[in-house]
Amino acid sequence: MNLTIDREVLIDSLNTISRGLPTKSPMPILLGIKLYATDKDLFLTSSNSDISVEVRINDPSLVIEEFGQVVVPGRFFIDIIRKLNSKKVNLYLNEDNVLFIKVDRGEYRLRIMDPLDYPKIDFVSQENPFVISSNTLKNIIRETLFATCQSEKKPILTGVNFNLTDGKLTITATDSFRLAQKVVNIEDYENFNITVPAKSLDDLFKAIDTCNDDLKIYISNNKMLVVFKNVCFQTRLLEGNYPDTSRLIPDYFPIVIKFNKDELQEVVERISLLSPRDKEKDKEITYSIIKLSLKKDRIIEVSTTNASIGDGTEQVIPTDIEANGPITIGFSSRYLIEALRSFTSTEVTLNILGDIRPFIIRGDNEPNLTQLILPVRIDN
Amino acid sequence: MNLTIDREVLIDSLNTISRGLPTKSPMPILLGIKLYATDKDLFLTSSNSDISVEVRINDPSLVIEEFGQVVVPGRFFIDIIRKLNSKKVNLYLNEDNVLFIKVDRGEYRLRIMDPLDYPKIDFVSQENPFVISSNTLKNIIRETLFATCQSEKKPILTGVNFNLTDGKLTITATDSFRLAQKVVNIEDYENFNITVPAKSLDDLFKAIDTCNDDLKIYISNNKMLVVFKNVCFQTRLLEGNYPDTSRLIPDYFPIVIKFNKDELQEVVERISLLSPRDKEKDKEITYSIIKLSLKKDRIIEVSTTNASIGDGTEQVIPTDIEANGPITIGFSSRYLIEALRSFTSTEVTLNILGDIRPFIIRGDNEPNLTQLILPVRIDN
Repeated sequence: MNLTIDREVLIDSLNTISRGLPTKSPMPILLGIKLYATDKDLFLTSSNSDISVEVRINDPSLVIEEFGQVVVPGRFFIDIIRKLNSKKVNLYLNEDNVLFIKVDRGEYRLRIMDPLDYPKIDFVSQENPFVISSNTLKNIIRETLFATCQSEKKPILTGVNFNLTDGKLTITATDSFRLAQKVVNIEDYENFNITVPAKSLDDLFKAIDTCNDDLKIYISNNKMLVVFKNVCFQTRLLEGNYPDTSRLIPDYFPIVIKFNKDELQEVVERISLLSPRDKEKDKEITYSIIKLSLKKDRIIEVSTTNASIGDGTEQVIPTDIEANGPITIGFSSRYLIEALRSFTSTEVTLNILGDIRPFIIRGDNEPNLTQLILPVRIDN
Repeated sequence: MNLTIDREVLIDSLNTISRGLPTKSPMPILLGIKLYATDKDLFLTSSNSDISVEVRINDPSLVIEEFGQVVVPGRFFIDIIRKLNSKKVNLYLNEDNVLFIKVDRGEYRLRIMDPLDYPKIDFVSQENPFVISSNTLKNIIRETLFATCQSEKKPILTGVNFNLTDGKLTITATDSFRLAQKVVNIEDYENFNITVPAKSLDDLFKAIDTCNDDLKIYISNNKMLVVFKNVCFQTRLLEGNYPDTSRLIPDYFPIVIKFNKDELQEVVERISLLSPRDKEKDKEITYSIIKLSLKKDRIIEVSTTNASIGDGTEQVIPTDIEANGPITIGFSSRYLIEALRSFTSTEVTLNILGDIRPFIIRGDNEPNLTQLILPVRIDN
């Protein structure tokens, strides 16, 4: 292999590829990046237990003098290419299996791994992709991903469910204490029901961060392939049936309170500073229980009590209110803050059925997004 | 206690005070901030095993209706005051020993600690301070602090030594593998020789970050007090004799090589990406051994070899060179990078005596700053 390429072009592709590069792996070969130069294209591949990423470079700056393939130590290769200050980079594999990275006044010589040891990636091959704009998918991920379960106890809940039924795509994430759900209309595509690992969606989100094009999505039995620009991004799917959440969301609410979103969020963030912190059993996530009370005089009070430090109360003035009678609900402030952050609407409504029934949050301009939170029992 | 104050004024003072607030302490009272309102001033105090900080507020916005003193939970108090969105804050201590923080539409009620349990801070009392500009002291800290010893094995080396002898203030830091030394002329002050804990200097650096005034420094047997604006910042001093380093710095160098500082630094940073990492025994600091070679044709080569990954070589063109014969020295790239960062000069010289003798770095515009590094033995 012997090729020359603009360093900036190579860095762009390495940034995308780096999403699939594990920091450690039981298979040392996966700590490498596979470079494969044909007579006109350079392919870069990375892979871990969840995702595989392949980028095809056929930039005008790419000059391939000799084709070939190598697997290079991934992190070292990326770090060196990023730090170099030359415009062009020459990659040359000599007969002793040493890859030379040559620049203006220096060279780096990397020991390579055998490309024949690199696992063959089976990318989903299908004719008919499902097409979605990258901005729509980025919004979906932003609106739901945070609600997935962090614990491996219920593996299926560590993913986000995508269910297409008769033209309606319902995206759901839940950790069984709260739920995020978005609905998007999709024309002319056959029904599917898949659950994508949260980590893969997080990596995909970063990989499509600067992409504004449409994405082509191919779905097989246990894999999903996302194709955009010159990139193939494939993830495994989670096995098992995602729970039916369709009857969890109530459709009648006697109490509907409308807030300015930022104002409610700031008050909840302040009050939760004082609230006692409980740790989830198997994760280092703390959550704080706060109370929201609708008083008789239609005043809303957010409050908390911390036995060792003290307590706090703030009032929030709702912008509108429909209610019969006072009510107090207690819940994790983190759940409400994360739910509120998922909305871009200026105004949101809290829709409440009862003090121990799930309540839901909706945004004025986002009719297709629902955030649900299960209250906890509290002493009033 | 009952007082009102502009929140921004209180936050400024709390930011300064927070330097002295420990995150944990065997004395729970020290996790609190002491507030002491006289009839016209509000004093805030924090203290840990190394430093004590006191701020006196007598801002026009301060209205004290009732004097008194309390100790409030430090982190909670700071977090709440920072997050509030009102212009003014009212602090009110009721008869049940609860401190009320009252704002426009809410209130926080903090359980307080007994101010009589708070240790009395003995600030150094002296007539005649030693005066230094805050910018000079900030430079001194930036130029030397990084070279202090991270390990507690030689406690005296975990501090920076300030030695004033006959009008010449010599500031030294060393971990016995490298040394940073700065000389500043001081008129009319009696000789002293003190060693200040590195952590205290780091806190002081942050506390005087936005200060451009002169600092008044008072030194006692085992304490140093720095007074600026409305702040008293006091640190303990390290006990023991600082080693005499005056004969460590050679004064004759057969090899003097001048570099553009940024160019040398970038090459060293790149080459060190590949170099093997050794861990210091009791700290998680990695350092990388690289080589710098003066070749017969007056070319300078920076190189490294990593048995498992590969090797790298880059040339740096010196801007000037005085030398007889080739030489190769090996050293920690981190030591050279940190030493180079301490200079503001565009050009620096490496002054070399021999391949296993200490070499020193000087900046063209900084005649009073010396960085010394001890090479390691290498196989050429």
